[in-house]
Amino acid sequence: MPDKLTDTIEELVKANRILAHEGVLDAFGHVSVRHPSDPGRYLMSRSRSPQLVEPGDILEYTLDSAPVKPPTARLYSERVIHGCIYQARSDVMAVCHHHAPAVMPFCVAGKPIVPVFHFGATMGASHTVFWDQHDEFGNTNLLVVKPEEGQSLARALGQHSVILMKRHGATVAGHGLRDVVARSIYLCQNAEYQLRAHMLGSPIPLHPGEIKPAGEANLNPPVVGRAWEYWSMRLEAAGAWPPTRSAKAARSKRTEPARAKTRPRTSSKAKRRR
Amino acid sequence: MPDKLTDTIEELVKANRILAHEGVLDAFGHVSVRHPSDPGRYLMSRSRSPQLVEPGDILEYTLDSAPVKPPTARLYSERVIHGCIYQARSDVMAVCHHHAPAVMPFCVAGKPIVPVFHFGATMGASHTVFWDQHDEFGNTNLLVVKPEEGQSLARALGQHSVILMKRHGATVAGHGLRDVVARSIYLCQNAEYQLRAHMLGSPIPLHPGEIKPAGEANLNPPVVGRAWEYWSMRLEAAGAWPPTRSAKAARSKRTEPARAKTRPRTSSKAKRRR
Amino acid sequence: MPDKLTDTIEELVKANRILAHEGVLDAFGHVSVRHPSDPGRYLMSRSRSPQLVEPGDILEYTLDSAPVKPPTARLYSERVIHGCIYQARSDVMAVCHHHAPAVMPFCVAGKPIVPVFHFGATMGASHTVFWDQHDEFGNTNLLVVKPEEGQSLARALGQHSVILMKRHGATVAGHGLRDVVARSIYLCQNAEYQLRAHMLGSPIPLHPGEIKPAGEANLNPPVVGRAWEYWSMRLEAAGAWPPTRSAKAARSKRTEPARAKTRPRTSSKAKRRR
Amino acid sequence: MPDKLTDTIEELVKANRILAHEGVLDAFGHVSVRHPSDPGRYLMSRSRSPQLVEPGDILEYTLDSAPVKPPTARLYSERVIHGCIYQARSDVMAVCHHHAPAVMPFCVAGKPIVPVFHFGATMGASHTVFWDQHDEFGNTNLLVVKPEEGQSLARALGQHSVILMKRHGATVAGHGLRDVVARSIYLCQNAEYQLRAHMLGSPIPLHPGEIKPAGEANLNPPVVGRAWEYWSMRLEAAGAWPPTRSAKAARSKRTEPARAKTRPRTSSKAKRRR
Repeated sequence: MPDKLTDTIEELVKANRILAHEGVLDAFGHVSVRHPSDPGRYLMSRSRSPQLVEPGDILEYTLDSAPVKPPTARLYSERVIHGCIYQARSDVMAVCHHHAPAVMPFCVAGKPIVPVFHFGATMGASHTVFWDQHDEFGNTNLLVVKPEEGQSLARALGQHSVILMKRHGATVAGHGLRDVVARSIYLCQNAEYQLRAHMLGSPIPLHPGEIKPAGEANLNPPVVGRAWEYWSMRLEAAGAWPPTRSAKAARSKRTEPARAKTRPRTSSKAKRRR
Repeated sequence: MPDKLTDTIEELVKANRILAHEGVLDAFGHVSVRHPSDPGRYLMSRSRSPQLVEPGDILEYTLDSAPVKPPTARLYSERVIHGCIYQARSDVMAVCHHHAPAVMPFCVAGKPIVPVFHFGATMGASHTVFWDQHDEFGNTNLLVVKPEEGQSLARALGQHSVILMKRHGATVAGHGLRDVVARSIYLCQNAEYQLRAHMLGSPIPLHPGEIKPAGEANLNPPVVGRAWEYWSMRLEAAGAWPPTRSAKAARSKRTEPARAKTRPRTSSKAKRRR
Repeated sequence: MPDKLTDTIEELVKANRILAHEGVLDAFGHVSVRHPSDPGRYLMSRSRSPQLVEPGDILEYTLDSAPVKPPTARLYSERVIHGCIYQARSDVMAVCHHHAPAVMPFCVAGKPIVPVFHFGATMGASHTVFWDQHDEFGNTNLLVVKPEEGQSLARALGQHSVILMKRHGATVAGHGLRDVVARSIYLCQNAEYQLRAHMLGSPIPLHPGEIKPAGEANLNPPVVGRAWEYWSMRLEAAGAWPPTRSAKAARSKRTEPARAKTRPRTSSKAKRRR
Repeated sequence: MPDKLTDTIEELVKANRILAHEGVLDAFGHVSVRHPSDPGRYLMSRSRSPQLVEPGDILEYTLDSAPVKPPTARLYSERVIHGCIYQARSDVMAVCHHHAPAVMPFCVAGKPIVPVFHFGATMGASHTVFWDQHDEFGNTNLLVVKPEEGQSLARALGQHSVILMKRHGATVAGHGLRDVVARSIYLCQNAEYQLRAHMLGSPIPLHPGEIKPAGEANLNPPVVGRAWEYWSMRLEAAGAWPPTRSAKAARSKRTEPARAKTRPRTSSKAKRRR
């Protein structure tokens, strides 16, 4: 089914750019989706900043995080985060690993994020769980690159949808790309409101019985669809969608003849490099 | 009077976009206005993110929040917030329900917002009142969708113009669209300054006798008009006004023939979906 | 000397727009300059949001804050702030009154701003002074509109260059337009760093003997000139300078014939209103 | 090797603009690089706000911070910061001095920044060191302009890569331009997360044994290269790269004949000044 795959790749490219534009991802972090027709594979970009990802950057990986075709570019070093979660959780269809500024203070202070408003309930639990790479692996560079590191993280995630990684970032799992994008963005909003409520006194979390209904209501496809239309509009307004447009614009800038003529400012080597 | 209705719809579309652009509304939240010639009806968009609302999205509702014409699109689920306030308060001509980031910490910490500067006095009281859906309705998804939920909220609002909804957001009532836009934006500014003053020591609110004159001075039509021109300019500068321009721009991007020729990147199904 | 006046008006328009673009002024607040050839007069815009001010909006006032020519538009109600300071301080050549978000927490908490970094020394003193309108005038709408209110504020300012107005905002005086723009922007930066240092522990202000040399070094014309070039570049990049360009762009949007043809969406009344 | 020099100048111009666009530099601050073929010289802009720097602004200096050619424009007064560090540290190839908003609260509160996430480890130590100009030089304007002031700062820096200057700012040293850009940006992120973690409780720094491997992993050329592509994309999207484009755009705005015809608003003197 090539159409289904093409659609999934386009949605993954858009998810990359929305997450970057909404402040979840920056130069680093990544988002993946399980292959739409082969549950033993997943799709993710080559090593590239998410806001720059184009359809041609998307590669297929086995659940051992090996590229299906011999790679011609660098790969994300932390792809075991994705593969190990897909292996451990057949219900997970998409994964996002990030270092969002709103979430980092909690990863640094070791304080759990708790749902403090109805959209925050999409984390699906009364608090986030933690993983500390140092507990099991001692002094590392904090990157999750070995299979055993990915497996340890997946075990700590268990049946949760969000895990905070101490001194590092967060990983969010979802039932689909839009689900994981929505959960990641709402987690950031929740974290921000929780921190600021803490400054006013103390945040009062949702009643335990409110979390499930509020979480489900806000992950309902038409509700996520309304948010998706909003995030897409913002991406278009910023000139970051569709991806080919920016690529074309960037290219036309680079070859603009008028400029090259009036000010030949770089060596031939510099031109080649760009 | 068709002209009056057309003007009101245009002002409502602009109010949607200003509130979104100034950070009061995001993918969610909504603003309504009482029908200019029939006080038994109100106008509000179909379910859509406010910054995307166009004139053709505006629908008429009875005060029971039923659409006057059979709807062909999804409706906001929380429209009883609007209908129940119009029923309870004949002086209210416009209503905005939102989850503004500046206000959320107060909804989460359960601390009232108090007027701390002259524009904050437009809330018209010495402190905001609170409503907690759980008190009367137990565990819900926190959305205000049943008539009895809307009525309970309207009762708690009483004669106030602002109510904070715990773990959820805020609802603001006003004597007209510009009034409710101004009150909503100034409430956010006031909340932000109050929180930051709290970090410095403790915020000192307005003297009780200052609230009424300062509130009235800043809701004076020429004063609100000056702010309205400013918010409109910002909306135009961001390319978000007039609404038809953005629609046209968006359409031209989608059908740009040069791009379609050089890179046919989506299946016919994907094209249909967009 | 018409040239000198034209230049001063252009610089005043730019000062309005820079102060708005850098976050000192928003829909409200205003900046004025003493008349370049008549010290008994000052120049300030008609009542309009500073980022929208154009050369044709600038009016001449006597030091009693009466317009020299019969006004055809609304005037700022708080112009006595400017007139009374020019009357009391022959060394003051420019005045800015604002409610900058960075400064407001200090006006609300009643805590003085103290110079905490070298640019903050441009306030020229070891701490800001305060004025509380309620002390002398009781319950008001907090606007400074009567001559006696302006005179009281000018007395409290004394020989300082900055005064914080409780529950209201700040007023900054300078030896010229660029001086008052620089002082206003650096005051905001200083306030922000002071508040955040307070969150870390306690801010340590400049040594008393550092304030004068650091303040003078940073108000040196070439140093302010370098900042002015930076603020101007940012204004141009945002499309907000030169003023005629935006006006022209705005006008062309309003009369774009293609759009009017394909969607005649407003009544003749609405068109007239715009 | 003129090509190598041309490439270095282009990279230095880009470093200036990236650091400005990412919020490290503003109207002030500066970045330099050691001359690519003569270790006894360094390259830095004439006195100009970094976001405006163009290739023609770059000058050569000896390590005594004297310009190699007689200057025709103003120079940065604080260039001894750069020269003295290059003299003291043969391993340092690039230096950035800044007053980044994220770092200033630590310079004001006198609290060290400690690495709290893996990118923060690029500071290469368990905490930043401090220098206080007042300790050795008493009351100054806080600018580092005398050779002995620069030497004192370089001594305090020692073998570290970051030094905080009390009531002033920070100086960052690196093994190359991209290295110093990355370190400066990550220092800001780290400072922001540390301050916010402090608001939640207390920040838990990296284990001492994690700092070296995490720092090296994130300064690895391909990893910095990925970030560099991201920062470059953001610069291009903002219209701030390439430099000639903005210059050309700015020039075309200034001479746009249509505008000049329809509204001749400035005196000939004003035109000359622009």
